[in-house]
Amino acid sequence: MVKWNNLDTLASFQDLSNVKRVNLQEAMSGENGAERVKKYSTAMAEGLVYNYAAKSVDDNVLAALEKLAEEAQLAEKFEALYNGEVVNTGENRLVLHHMTRGQLGDAVTADGVDKRTFYVEQQEKIADFANKVHAGEITNAAGEKFTTVVQIGIGGSDLGPRAMYLALENWAKKNNLFKMEAKFISNVDPDDAAAVLNSIDVAHSIFVLVSKSGTTLETLTNESFVKDALKNAGLDASKHMIAVTSETSPLAKSDDYLAAFFMDDYIGGRFSSTSAVGGAVLSLAFGPEVFAQFLEGAAAEDKISANKNLLENPAMLDALIGVYERNVLGYPSTTVLPYSQALSRFPAHLQQLDMESNGKSVNRFGDAVSYPTGPVIFGEPGTNGQHSFYQLLHQGTDIVPLQFIGFRNNQIGTDVVIQDSTSQQKLCANVAAQIVAFACGKFDDNRNKNFEGGRPSSIIIGDQLNPKTLGALLAHFENKIMFQGFVWNVNSFDQEGVQLGKVLAKKVLAHETDGALKVYSDLLNI
Amino acid sequence: MVKWNNLDTLASFQDLSNVKRVNLQEAMSGENGAERVKKYSTAMAEGLVYNYAAKSVDDNVLAALEKLAEEAQLAEKFEALYNGEVVNTGENRLVLHHMTRGQLGDAVTADGVDKRTFYVEQQEKIADFANKVHAGEITNAAGEKFTTVVQIGIGGSDLGPRAMYLALENWAKKNNLFKMEAKFISNVDPDDAAAVLNSIDVAHSIFVLVSKSGTTLETLTNESFVKDALKNAGLDASKHMIAVTSETSPLAKSDDYLAAFFMDDYIGGRFSSTSAVGGAVLSLAFGPEVFAQFLEGAAAEDKISANKNLLENPAMLDALIGVYERNVLGYPSTTVLPYSQALSRFPAHLQQLDMESNGKSVNRFGDAVSYPTGPVIFGEPGTNGQHSFYQLLHQGTDIVPLQFIGFRNNQIGTDVVIQDSTSQQKLCANVAAQIVAFACGKFDDNRNKNFEGGRPSSIIIGDQLNPKTLGALLAHFENKIMFQGFVWNVNSFDQEGVQLGKVLAKKVLAHETDGALKVYSDLLNI
Repeated sequence: MVKWNNLDTLASFQDLSNVKRVNLQEAMSGENGAERVKKYSTAMAEGLVYNYAAKSVDDNVLAALEKLAEEAQLAEKFEALYNGEVVNTGENRLVLHHMTRGQLGDAVTADGVDKRTFYVEQQEKIADFANKVHAGEITNAAGEKFTTVVQIGIGGSDLGPRAMYLALENWAKKNNLFKMEAKFISNVDPDDAAAVLNSIDVAHSIFVLVSKSGTTLETLTNESFVKDALKNAGLDASKHMIAVTSETSPLAKSDDYLAAFFMDDYIGGRFSSTSAVGGAVLSLAFGPEVFAQFLEGAAAEDKISANKNLLENPAMLDALIGVYERNVLGYPSTTVLPYSQALSRFPAHLQQLDMESNGKSVNRFGDAVSYPTGPVIFGEPGTNGQHSFYQLLHQGTDIVPLQFIGFRNNQIGTDVVIQDSTSQQKLCANVAAQIVAFACGKFDDNRNKNFEGGRPSSIIIGDQLNPKTLGALLAHFENKIMFQGFVWNVNSFDQEGVQLGKVLAKKVLAHETDGALKVYSDLLNI
Repeated sequence: MVKWNNLDTLASFQDLSNVKRVNLQEAMSGENGAERVKKYSTAMAEGLVYNYAAKSVDDNVLAALEKLAEEAQLAEKFEALYNGEVVNTGENRLVLHHMTRGQLGDAVTADGVDKRTFYVEQQEKIADFANKVHAGEITNAAGEKFTTVVQIGIGGSDLGPRAMYLALENWAKKNNLFKMEAKFISNVDPDDAAAVLNSIDVAHSIFVLVSKSGTTLETLTNESFVKDALKNAGLDASKHMIAVTSETSPLAKSDDYLAAFFMDDYIGGRFSSTSAVGGAVLSLAFGPEVFAQFLEGAAAEDKISANKNLLENPAMLDALIGVYERNVLGYPSTTVLPYSQALSRFPAHLQQLDMESNGKSVNRFGDAVSYPTGPVIFGEPGTNGQHSFYQLLHQGTDIVPLQFIGFRNNQIGTDVVIQDSTSQQKLCANVAAQIVAFACGKFDDNRNKNFEGGRPSSIIIGDQLNPKTLGALLAHFENKIMFQGFVWNVNSFDQEGVQLGKVLAKKVLAHETDGALKVYSDLLNI
């Protein structure tokens, strides 16, 4: 039986706070630094490697983190979660997103069905549907093939699938696996839907409406927007739309949709990329085999995340180093810096994944915690960020821990040699250089040109961004965030913080406001 | 003569620290709250309004901020800057980006020319060129019109122009002012250029190469990438490329370009959207008149930013409230939340503008400062962010000040009524609701559903996002950041923090590394 205790009640956390701090600049310099880079590295799935040599850790800190992992029962809690314990206690729900891509432990039955079987069935139904669309067996009313898929969803129904689509778009094109273009409508700003609709050929577009509850206001509004556009084009909307929803939602058995694919309450929106939420749009865009490979990569990483040995469990290690940075070293934010243009929206997805999961100030029993929990997460791809906000990262007054991601090879394979190196080599040289620049700094008599160093980073390195490595990458961060939630003793799987705004917005629309809210409403002409 | 002193040496800053803190939750509740929203508001240019009622200020705090503005000589420093004093002391340069859109004070002569005349001339040259492209007088070698413009640039040559293009794209289309599509290549990742090139018709594309020095590695590499593509298509690259650079750069008088337009050393990259850097691509995309309106809006806001009365100077007020939040209340980051899908990349531009300008830990004399300077800046459009990271903003353990932006009307004008309101009304209702939810919170016995409130925000409200309001919005933030730099006594106009990474990356590419850098290079197969 696992025990849920606050971080500051654990003896191992007190011990961790007392471990001598690492002088990163010193540790990363000279041959000692070279040894660290070789040593502080652990294998992920699909050939990826998590290297934490440039983090502010040493053998003493790592030993203390091992004790913390043990006392906080991180491996046991993950085990309880994937074996079907109700870990989302606030909403009294199981947490089963891992099961959308594999089965780590026991069979889990809920709602009268074996859940692994249920998720596999949904994936198979989607695969069948997508294959028929690609083969021209499912077409528009005129019998013509669909050429574009448009996802209508917001938050978890948008950010993850969109980031994954962008991550694989060029890879799929290069490998002749690209089936159809995907677009995304999310914002309730009517200009979002209008601009997407203006950019596509609606007669050859298939729309995926994604809402677990079937009641998300933005999504229903945008559905209506799209239906108007289809109607105005003289088309039958029900021949152009599919739904991804829960079996109990009003969308589930409606004649308004060509087909419906199901998720359930055990898959949080931000953890739903490997469920039907990501499955429908990605299978339509790239084919079901590509989506299956993506799941395979995620499942392989999940297995590694179940390893009880901290030093062989990169997600758990990444999580604990993050806790050390947040709760001992006191750094309030973290930046994610993929050196890959294809990962341009991956930081935005992680921003949701992390901040919505662990941006809590009460523990899982509803008691206030007295330590910082989830940090602010932000990021942009390198090298772009180097010419933007890296100035503050190098020379600002606050230290911001960095999470780099880099690949030895690009996706498209076209390159150019300038000054004796390819662009890909320049890209990789830059990420290597940044790690060392941040860690070691460089003294200069001119203080304005001086770099203090001591700015910690880790890097995940892989051969190439492809469906399998992307799946592994995603699972790594999902599991890291889960482990951090365990350490902070928060429920990472609910999001009560989004409710109050919804309630007040409804009041504004019903003109049931007074005080400040009334004046703001007037100023905005509502 | 202005005096440059560190913030913590100013008596008014000590006084500010001692002013009684505002209980925001209380202040924003009931009729008192309604009064605040009416009172704490000041006019910007082009009908915009800066409303700071939901910030943690009251008359006492504002009086203390007025004294700080006075003692720090903010108005005088801005005056010195626009009258041509060398404010960028580190690089011994004038700071003249305001002059690209108007002349606030004295004529300024540098490099032997009147600078206002110089910038106007460049704008006119660009207008003439763009008009000829649109009229089909400047064409490709086959005599066909160009249909796409591609900006090649990184950092300031990318983020600002890209954000402005996206901000006006749908407005221009709606108003029949859209001339040609713009694309952007920035990253040294070869997949960035390859993907853009695969998505366009190169034979009908004109490329704008933007590099002040003419030596930016990413940009030269991508130029070469594009030239290869043009050559492979049997085209003469010099008939498809223009340059935006300084007059002394190697690009300035090269036969490789159809034309060259000039900026100079007095325009920092991140402040260059209103110079030729933004001018070329925006004039080609939307026509020179639209670009002129954008400059007009910026110039009008600059004038307001020169107002000596703090309460009538929204940029200065925004700056000082930010300093109060950073240096007295101790908040380490700020989020920018435009309720407008068209501003999707505006936060990324502000991230550079702010973090690269004020992410410094030495003052303008090169001495270390002992107080926090520039915060971390991040953001995404609402309502998308509500379904993503707002959980942490509402219920996380750290307080993150918020900067909202909202418009009464959308750009495209298509809308749909669902549950008795339009999408535009829903959008506006949401931003109004969020301000009050963050400020006032809501008590709940269930601590997990409890909202503490006390989370400060401001909002800029306008009628519609168009070239003029966009110009005003941009100038507001540019000037806010400038004023904050004055208060912190840092040089907001250099960026020495980007240098070390460049130096080390060159060493990696030359295989002149040892220690940790060598091992990272090997891991990345360089």
